[in-house]
Amino acid sequence: MLHNRGMNSEKAKGSRRAAIVGATGAVGQELIKLIEEKPEYSDNLRLFASSKSAGKSIPFRGQEVIVQSLDEADFSGVDLAFFSAGASRSKEFAPIAIKQGAFVVDNSSAFRMNPDVPLIVPEVNGNSLKADGRLAAVPNCSAIILLMAIEPLRKLGRISRLIVSTYQSASGGGAAMMQRLIEETGYYLQGQNHPVPNSKYPPYAFNLFSHNTPIEEDGANEEELKVVQESKKILNDPGLLINVTCVRVPVLRAHTESITVEFTDSRPTIEAIRSSIERFPGVKLVDNRVENEFPTPRLASGQGDVLVGRLREDPSHDKAVCLLASGDQLLKGAALTAVQIADLAMDPALAAI
Amino acid sequence: MLHNRGMNSEKAKGSRRAAIVGATGAVGQELIKLIEEKPEYSDNLRLFASSKSAGKSIPFRGQEVIVQSLDEADFSGVDLAFFSAGASRSKEFAPIAIKQGAFVVDNSSAFRMNPDVPLIVPEVNGNSLKADGRLAAVPNCSAIILLMAIEPLRKLGRISRLIVSTYQSASGGGAAMMQRLIEETGYYLQGQNHPVPNSKYPPYAFNLFSHNTPIEEDGANEEELKVVQESKKILNDPGLLINVTCVRVPVLRAHTESITVEFTDSRPTIEAIRSSIERFPGVKLVDNRVENEFPTPRLASGQGDVLVGRLREDPSHDKAVCLLASGDQLLKGAALTAVQIADLAMDPALAAI
Repeated sequence: MLHNRGMNSEKAKGSRRAAIVGATGAVGQELIKLIEEKPEYSDNLRLFASSKSAGKSIPFRGQEVIVQSLDEADFSGVDLAFFSAGASRSKEFAPIAIKQGAFVVDNSSAFRMNPDVPLIVPEVNGNSLKADGRLAAVPNCSAIILLMAIEPLRKLGRISRLIVSTYQSASGGGAAMMQRLIEETGYYLQGQNHPVPNSKYPPYAFNLFSHNTPIEEDGANEEELKVVQESKKILNDPGLLINVTCVRVPVLRAHTESITVEFTDSRPTIEAIRSSIERFPGVKLVDNRVENEFPTPRLASGQGDVLVGRLREDPSHDKAVCLLASGDQLLKGAALTAVQIADLAMDPALAAI
Repeated sequence: MLHNRGMNSEKAKGSRRAAIVGATGAVGQELIKLIEEKPEYSDNLRLFASSKSAGKSIPFRGQEVIVQSLDEADFSGVDLAFFSAGASRSKEFAPIAIKQGAFVVDNSSAFRMNPDVPLIVPEVNGNSLKADGRLAAVPNCSAIILLMAIEPLRKLGRISRLIVSTYQSASGGGAAMMQRLIEETGYYLQGQNHPVPNSKYPPYAFNLFSHNTPIEEDGANEEELKVVQESKKILNDPGLLINVTCVRVPVLRAHTESITVEFTDSRPTIEAIRSSIERFPGVKLVDNRVENEFPTPRLASGQGDVLVGRLREDPSHDKAVCLLASGDQLLKGAALTAVQIADLAMDPALAAI
């Protein structure tokens, strides 16, 4: 095991070698920016993408890194391989990266529900990362933001049921969907309807729609199933009741969620919840009733913290509270959590267990 | 009473004289279009607005109608006065219109919670309109769309609790807010941030925010309170439990709502709910799981029906179901409901009671 991970944590600063699979995607781009700022990582960054992006060059610490085709990827010498190129790519290439000695942090859904793979939100279940592992999965972005928002409430009492409606941004559909929202909106403002050939989702300009993933037999869409199943796994609470409705809104890069939390025994005071949020890392209280300042996706964009506010008692249930949360889908919803998981995996304290 | 209402219903076709207060507003414009198409109304339409809009001319059935200042409004000869110029205008001028013989249909919040004033969604509680009344209130737009969506479910069993998150459009804030969303978005696409002096709400381009109404002591905003209080009044069910979170999204003119409905006794089947929706006037089932076609605000825009879909059992509660509803805020949420109330008020059957 030390061969694969522990050795790297003992190296000098700046010696951690990373590879990013899906380097030209929206999450890949954020990963590059985050790694650029972290002195633990060496300048020797390896970037992989589909063959159609191979040959592109991406600036990194003043140099240009050439993107290589994943099909010919060689992970030898890589300590950490961040995968963010979809589930099928992860399924095919993550085992290769592991075999070649890398620790894989996978942003896709490929391994999340595999009972042998830790599914990690560092602030929530970082202790589920095992010293002998070589792979960890980053949860679905909506699940991460939900769990970050409610973790300070979990400190105050057992939660029995969550009722969630999401306001999800285009970034969840990748750089292409962000671009399409921008283009369609531009056309709309010019009085034209953007031609959308073979679209898998409705018009997006000034519109919203039920999340564009297939609907299962019970009527839930795949995104909703992910939130339910992954949340139960991360919290290690298979009996937790979760009702979630996933909706895409015409917002670029941060998800918002309207959350009702039902407690098992009694409702904590709003003051106790505020105080718990203020003490909790990775969340920020934005709850100014006088100025009507609450979490918004534009406020959340570009920052690592999940914003939580609109805290109030649920007038329909004496053990429930309501809140709004906004989190940057590309950062805490994906790239930042991946980098935090990598930090945990490289922590000598973990390797020493 | 007949003097004020009944007589008009006995007149020849085309003799119903309407006045519109707030004629240049977003709802006023829709009222004009609806009345234009209804043969019961005479060509003699009277339009009122603030003094700053007075003198403008608005086309109606091939003629130009000059907008008059409300401050000098004379309602004599008017059968139906539609008020849509804010609560303070309604409070001041609706009594004058009534005194001068008009039946007032008020779109504002001025009289909604007055126990003597019927608050009407025609398909839901049209029978609450009394023959001797001279004033009826149009409910809050979010309440109308909610109640239309759940009325077919109420036919199948008693509802104990509603949990609602809204996705409200700019039109709820009037023509000015719609214009601002368009302008801000245009600036944003050009890489500029629109200067918003003295704004009462956050940036709107590609953003969403908790509804920009003052927050009450219990943490609810005024919009949420309206939905709760008005729904209980309309359904004549003061014990109904309602949890609602009101959020504005960057959509132009239709509201969407994510609704969880908890039944008191048992959950109807999804098939029974579909069938009930299909039988109910004013709602339209949009629930195609295979094609992922569900209600969206752009689909709802411009049509009178409230679209309902995404029907499914709530996996977190054995007596609950979830659904999505979209309705045109300016039509069923305001102008159309007002015109339908006027039709009820003018109905000889009502006058004969």
